[in-house]
Amino acid sequence: MFTPLRSFIDVAPDSHFPLENLPYGVFRPAQGNARVGVAIGALVLDLSVLEEQGTFRTPELSKSAVFAQDSLNSFLSLGRPAWRRAREIIQHLLAAETPELRDNAGLRDHAFHQQRDVTMHLPAHIGDYTDFYSSYHHAHNVGTMLRGPENALMPNWKWLPVGYHGRSSSLVVSGTDVRRPYGQTKPPDADAPIFGPSRSFDYELEMAFLIGPGNGLGEPVPIERADEHIFGMVLMNDWSARDVQAWEYQPLGPFLAKNFCTSISPWVVTLDALAPFRKPLPPQEPEPLPYLRAPNDSTFDIQLEAQLQTATMVAPHVITRTNFQNLYWSIAQQLAHHTVGGCNLQPGDLLASGTISGPSEESRGCMLELTWRGANPLTLPNGETRKWLEDGDALTIRGWAEGDGYRVGFGEVSGRVLPAITR
Amino acid sequence: MFTPLRSFIDVAPDSHFPLENLPYGVFRPAQGNARVGVAIGALVLDLSVLEEQGTFRTPELSKSAVFAQDSLNSFLSLGRPAWRRAREIIQHLLAAETPELRDNAGLRDHAFHQQRDVTMHLPAHIGDYTDFYSSYHHAHNVGTMLRGPENALMPNWKWLPVGYHGRSSSLVVSGTDVRRPYGQTKPPDADAPIFGPSRSFDYELEMAFLIGPGNGLGEPVPIERADEHIFGMVLMNDWSARDVQAWEYQPLGPFLAKNFCTSISPWVVTLDALAPFRKPLPPQEPEPLPYLRAPNDSTFDIQLEAQLQTATMVAPHVITRTNFQNLYWSIAQQLAHHTVGGCNLQPGDLLASGTISGPSEESRGCMLELTWRGANPLTLPNGETRKWLEDGDALTIRGWAEGDGYRVGFGEVSGRVLPAITR
Repeated sequence: MFTPLRSFIDVAPDSHFPLENLPYGVFRPAQGNARVGVAIGALVLDLSVLEEQGTFRTPELSKSAVFAQDSLNSFLSLGRPAWRRAREIIQHLLAAETPELRDNAGLRDHAFHQQRDVTMHLPAHIGDYTDFYSSYHHAHNVGTMLRGPENALMPNWKWLPVGYHGRSSSLVVSGTDVRRPYGQTKPPDADAPIFGPSRSFDYELEMAFLIGPGNGLGEPVPIERADEHIFGMVLMNDWSARDVQAWEYQPLGPFLAKNFCTSISPWVVTLDALAPFRKPLPPQEPEPLPYLRAPNDSTFDIQLEAQLQTATMVAPHVITRTNFQNLYWSIAQQLAHHTVGGCNLQPGDLLASGTISGPSEESRGCMLELTWRGANPLTLPNGETRKWLEDGDALTIRGWAEGDGYRVGFGEVSGRVLPAITR
Repeated sequence: MFTPLRSFIDVAPDSHFPLENLPYGVFRPAQGNARVGVAIGALVLDLSVLEEQGTFRTPELSKSAVFAQDSLNSFLSLGRPAWRRAREIIQHLLAAETPELRDNAGLRDHAFHQQRDVTMHLPAHIGDYTDFYSSYHHAHNVGTMLRGPENALMPNWKWLPVGYHGRSSSLVVSGTDVRRPYGQTKPPDADAPIFGPSRSFDYELEMAFLIGPGNGLGEPVPIERADEHIFGMVLMNDWSARDVQAWEYQPLGPFLAKNFCTSISPWVVTLDALAPFRKPLPPQEPEPLPYLRAPNDSTFDIQLEAQLQTATMVAPHVITRTNFQNLYWSIAQQLAHHTVGGCNLQPGDLLASGTISGPSEESRGCMLELTWRGANPLTLPNGETRKWLEDGDALTIRGWAEGDGYRVGFGEVSGRVLPAITR
């Protein structure tokens, strides 16, 4: 039977960050600059400290100081052999039976911080951010609302992973509050649009993956090699102004409805940590074109939930329970499609799933679907109701893969809705 | 009467780069790193040389070395007072009557290069790139082809500058050849899409502006202050695979049809150089909402043309003649709209116009419109015909504002179509 790994650092049984995980993030300690660390239990291990004292002097990693930087980009560009070597070294160093760090009180003091004492940053400088639309149930629900059930899915949907370019500059890290945007909206019975704060403020429960080594312009990545370019994954909340979106999105797609803020979780869980949780892809019918087929393509069993806590609630309430396996298209298919025309990906680029809704009502990943565009408001445990998010509401997305006696978790991405600015 | 300024550098009467212009670019000389220069006649003036010897030690500019860098971003972030001061200093230094540089042969040798001897780079690190759809005639022509003349324009088109996020990583500088992309397309009579090289390869004649100082997340830029954030403009060719676009674009907009390559011209013409060419905006009916109205909003009289030269032609042939004034929405309106929901712009961001078509057939800015989706092929002077661009075709976009005895020009953006890779 599989036995959870043991570290000399205490890790609670329900912690997202056991020795099996070791997600990477960028943090700033109370004193000093931002640098790269891994999460272990309730602590952060400062990799720049280990790097400085020579822990990573191996052929794969010794090129330069990749951890004494305020982004993961240099480390991302090294590729999987380097990532695997770093993981082995860190896992060994943190293991219960390894004395090197365990018995060096001075080094431990220097290398560990409590997570609650540090400030998390975006994990990478994200040059380009792409958002896919890969949940069948989400696309079908939204399409049904807009065009009726017969025309819910566009004819292309089952042939290619539909996606679009998002806004990189407004990506923020978990904990950043999000301001209700202004925009143009058009009430159905009005002759002209009106301008004001969005009245249909929504979240979207998503996951996203970070690109490691890129590909050259004009050089597609074959699907069999997609994994070589994928470092790891984060949780994402793609905040959305639905009333703005409905008026603006034709014919070129969402723009202001999405570009005011997109939040991601700070800890990047590597594909190596997620390997035990790979599952077969759900059936795809019609069979995808050859450039989207790989013999062992897979998805991941990652449990996901969204919690809402209004200003008057004493505890958060789960409003979405879903799973990464609800996605129709795999991340390898998304990456192969993204590059098939020659588009170049670069280290740190972020590719997101789109809202991850499943077949059940409880698995719907946004208010638009949960309340069916406001027609069926949610009732919360304290009696409040919600068609959309209101000012003061806090929305938190959590996710984890459940191992045998341990969890490989993503932590959370959270944000609170601030009222629109006064104009 | 207005008299053209005179420089001690020879400037041909039809040069795009007289003393009135002074566009900024990033170049690499035969020996050395990339740095910032301005174009004057057929020469480049190396601003990093002048900076090093103290030419720019003024309160507005002296903060750090902004010209000894491989992008304009630091200079862009300084804002208009610094840009104006730099322009004054350079214009004075290059004037016929100023001896300082004119009579210093050693400094001249060091500071000037022939443009033909240097390699031009992208002018800025472009974090985010946005493409608008601001030509009424382009939107109307395309909409007519897709949906018929009654439904040509979406209901939102005259209320807001429709736009979408483009791909930053695949922006390239003029002179970069562009490879025909592969993609999914669906013939109208087929049951399923097919995969192969695009057979409807197109150019789009556009212009784009570069952002100077940005705005904070959640802090809209009022339209009256839009110009403070705009440094200058370039020519752009938004290469497009029309067959890929037709199949993929619903409902989230163009993706692979555009993200394989977008070309811009290397010299950024400042708003200060363009000031004499401001013209009133064309009438806008219905009247835009207040956040899109400014008392003296304006456009620019910039003549634009696209030239095609096939592999067998001995000279290029003009296939589009248009003008920046054909755009419905102003750059100030575009910027105000982009930020009104709180989206943050950053120095070096690029905002493009969309295809600039006018009312006449000759003013159509892409093959899609010129040949009406291939129905009316172009006949070229050597008897060749074109529905779309073919491998080996070179497409060059040129633009200039015509002054009294001088031109403030943009130079050109050019690229040649390479055959699809062998798979």
